[in-house]
Amino acid sequence: GVKLTEQVSKKSKKSLRYHERAEIVAHPLSKQLLKIMDSKQTNLAFSVDVTKCQQVLELVDKVGPHVCIVKTHVDIIEDFNDDFITALQKLADKHNFLIFEDRKFADIGNTVKHQYSSGVYKINQWAHITNAHSVPGDGVVQGLKDVGLPKNRGCLLIAEMSSTGNLATGEYTKATVKMAEEQADFVIGFICTSRLTDDPRFLHMTPGVQLSAGGDSLGQQYLTPNIVIGDRGSDIIIVGRGIYKADDPSNAAKLFKEAGYEAYLKQSVDFTITEQ
Amino acid sequence: GVKLTEQVSKKSKKSLRYHERAEIVAHPLSKQLLKIMDSKQTNLAFSVDVTKCQQVLELVDKVGPHVCIVKTHVDIIEDFNDDFITALQKLADKHNFLIFEDRKFADIGNTVKHQYSSGVYKINQWAHITNAHSVPGDGVVQGLKDVGLPKNRGCLLIAEMSSTGNLATGEYTKATVKMAEEQADFVIGFICTSRLTDDPRFLHMTPGVQLSAGGDSLGQQYLTPNIVIGDRGSDIIIVGRGIYKADDPSNAAKLFKEAGYEAYLKQSVDFTITEQ
Repeated sequence: GVKLTEQVSKKSKKSLRYHERAEIVAHPLSKQLLKIMDSKQTNLAFSVDVTKCQQVLELVDKVGPHVCIVKTHVDIIEDFNDDFITALQKLADKHNFLIFEDRKFADIGNTVKHQYSSGVYKINQWAHITNAHSVPGDGVVQGLKDVGLPKNRGCLLIAEMSSTGNLATGEYTKATVKMAEEQADFVIGFICTSRLTDDPRFLHMTPGVQLSAGGDSLGQQYLTPNIVIGDRGSDIIIVGRGIYKADDPSNAAKLFKEAGYEAYLKQSVDFTITEQ
Repeated sequence: GVKLTEQVSKKSKKSLRYHERAEIVAHPLSKQLLKIMDSKQTNLAFSVDVTKCQQVLELVDKVGPHVCIVKTHVDIIEDFNDDFITALQKLADKHNFLIFEDRKFADIGNTVKHQYSSGVYKINQWAHITNAHSVPGDGVVQGLKDVGLPKNRGCLLIAEMSSTGNLATGEYTKATVKMAEEQADFVIGFICTSRLTDDPRFLHMTPGVQLSAGGDSLGQQYLTPNIVIGDRGSDIIIVGRGIYKADDPSNAAKLFKEAGYEAYLKQSVDFTITEQ
């Protein structure tokens, strides 16, 4: 497996296809995600940043057929309750996607351990994936891992951000990649704006994606699926407002899915075919 | 006011006394905090990292007389409810301290705006102070400010951390100080391990304080009140486990308060006295 990757990478600077990578990765969650991406032909993650349970569930049911991941900010939901989580999990089963709580854990190990396992949200109990900033040092990963690894959860490290003037650059990004490599049993990939490593175990996910470039009034900057997947070699596009603010969210998701998948097909090589 | 500071600072590298600084600072919350510190003779913030409402309230009622700030992680409390907040606010009035929710906001402006104002916790409605990581760029401050400034809330930026291998160093720290200076109408100070600026508007608060140096198994590193306030010129010591894990939390808080205040008296100059 790894040999294949090296050959492909050297020959073409292109990625492997999802079904190939699904065989290489060790973490069961990465495997599951890549299989979903392969079978549903999508690299689209939907960021469902609305503030009522019913809104979230309706949107997710519409958009679900087109996505590999639904990303939540559970702490912006006004009427949060445990039934909501049950309903979200049912939708994840129905449409075959993973749930990613975008908590951006960013405290010392002892604190994130409690934040991840306890409180009102008990994120560890329902989110397949969560994420963390690397700024506290690797204690943050260790603290989350103590809770998440026994449940086969996975963590993304935020190595780069999409917002203006962010400080996740240069040495900070390099240190984050190193931190991930050292805890690759739990860190399954990155939040980033471009591919950071050719190691096929790590999944690269990029927020701030719209069908045309631009920004918002609070410093968010947008890139297109073709730039993110094609030019920058990321694996998954994360789309929020481009879908949930659309008149027809389901159709918008379908457009993002197709744009993302087309970019992937161009950017990757099916080794089993090209070698025969 | 500012002239005084410059003179004192040049002469002695010492700080002004709290009552002097209370007259210089512009933000009403900084003024209020410095007056509390002056009248209660304390620079102790208590980090009440326990996981049941009743435990939190009992501890805070015991420790309240000795502290200027109670710092919460509301998202680790298992049985959180709105009555808890009401009870905590009553204790803040009874004992005259400010409430600081240590949320470590770390997302883009549009997201933190919702996280701060909405969800189950509605942090903006009850926490005088909250904090943010600078890594997303100044959109994070702008997003929080949109919600917090009209309510006279204040924000601390995390410029340094106390955990092993953390990335809040060097250029990252400098960029954070600059971000604070540019938004000083809302940013009232720093989470840091030592004084970062002689500008008396900014309050420096340092976590990871114990009566003797050491660490935990997840990378936290401890310093003493004398090192933090005396040698490193910080303003406020943040103590968690040193108090809530003590057999007698009230007495432990008293010891930290005395150690912190003694260090402050040595490290500061009462300008009105020394000049006469």
